[in-house]
Amino acid sequence: MPYVNIRITREGATPEQKAELIAGVTDLLRRVLDKNPATTVVNIDEVDFENWGIGGLPVLDYRAVQTSQSKAQKP
Amino acid sequence: MPYVNIRITREGATPEQKAELIAGVTDLLRRVLDKNPATTVVNIDEVDFENWGIGGLPVLDYRAVQTSQSKAQKP
Amino acid sequence: MPYVNIRITREGATPEQKAELIAGVTDLLRRVLDKNPATTVVNIDEVDFENWGIGGLPVLDYRAVQTSQSKAQKP
Amino acid sequence: MPYVNIRITREGATPEQKAELIAGVTDLLRRVLDKNPATTVVNIDEVDFENWGIGGLPVLDYRAVQTSQSKAQKP
Amino acid sequence: MPYVNIRITREGATPEQKAELIAGVTDLLRRVLDKNPATTVVNIDEVDFENWGIGGLPVLDYRAVQTSQSKAQKP
Amino acid sequence: MPYVNIRITREGATPEQKAELIAGVTDLLRRVLDKNPATTVVNIDEVDFENWGIGGLPVLDYRAVQTSQSKAQKP
Repeated sequence: MPYVNIRITREGATPEQKAELIAGVTDLLRRVLDKNPATTVVNIDEVDFENWGIGGLPVLDYRAVQTSQSKAQKP
Repeated sequence: MPYVNIRITREGATPEQKAELIAGVTDLLRRVLDKNPATTVVNIDEVDFENWGIGGLPVLDYRAVQTSQSKAQKP
Repeated sequence: MPYVNIRITREGATPEQKAELIAGVTDLLRRVLDKNPATTVVNIDEVDFENWGIGGLPVLDYRAVQTSQSKAQKP
Repeated sequence: MPYVNIRITREGATPEQKAELIAGVTDLLRRVLDKNPATTVVNIDEVDFENWGIGGLPVLDYRAVQTSQSKAQKP
Repeated sequence: MPYVNIRITREGATPEQKAELIAGVTDLLRRVLDKNPATTVVNIDEVDFENWGIGGLPVLDYRAVQTSQSKAQKP
Repeated sequence: MPYVNIRITREGATPEQKAELIAGVTDLLRRVLDKNPATTVVNIDEVDFENWGIGGLPVLDYRAVQTSQSKAQKP
């Protein structure tokens, strides 16, 4: 009877990938806790880039910083 | 002062039906727990079919299975 | 197949009152949107006073202000 | 490592304003609780007017009532 | 950078089982969507029986009904 | 009218610190988006260590790994 909410950035996850997430997490709960798949509910929320923050920045700005930092570190 | 989050599949709930849900759950909290409607907040989240899983399947696949099973059971 | 999350302050809701909330909101979704009660999941979250804010204040401070204001307004 | 979910009505918040919210709440958690900004995740959910209820009404109806009441109170 | 919220009834999941859930869902997101485990956050919420509703009933009442029905169906 | 959910690990945040979070995020929403503090609701959820995962590990295991890695990196 579990409820699972998976939140990811909206960047092109396909219906097949979402089906894999739903099947995978439902099976995980069955294996680990013997939860009944019949009443396991999964919600996937896709969040626009500008609405997702990490490290104090919108995610695209954050990724840009990460990329430039890793470039700068190369000899 | 309650907060209520109602999550349903996105399949054409009308503004009138949503208003009924908002009024209904706000009134329920007033009747059962004497909660003040003035500060009761309701959020309805409509979730796309491919983002809603039940029984380990995306909901449309789940419904297709249910339908074919119930047909198969008829004599 | 809806999922409903009801959040209230933790202040002594009884099991009977919670059962009423569960029955009431499940029935509301059946009546308004023809949702199947069998797969309607309800979660009630009880939140400690110091973890609930309204009007920029923890809820007990907020209530104290409201009470003193309404007393002050009486002739 | 905190997770923050900010829910607002969808009414034209700009990317700059959202970036301010993300920066502001991440900094708040750093200042008050010494939380690491690097692993602070913020999600902003914008909710359509008809999906947001307050005072038992969809938010636009609620605002209309508030406006007409405040007009009626003026001498 | 995903955020996953797993909600289960509070009935004795061990720290080892919770660690399995955390590892499992983090790995699932890496395999299916190439999400970075380093910034994948998982929250497990354990909900008391009387706060979890299914089929319009608190979960223990629901299970009692299911059990008595399955007994009644046996020849 | 915003709703904000702040989730942190349960590790001794005081009522004063929580009041600061509530005041701070309510004020942030007023400054950035002109949101009315009177109807801004904040919920703080404190999550036990074993229920919080990051990097595929329960948070205490994760911190132990981080600490040993940073020690190992020192000359």
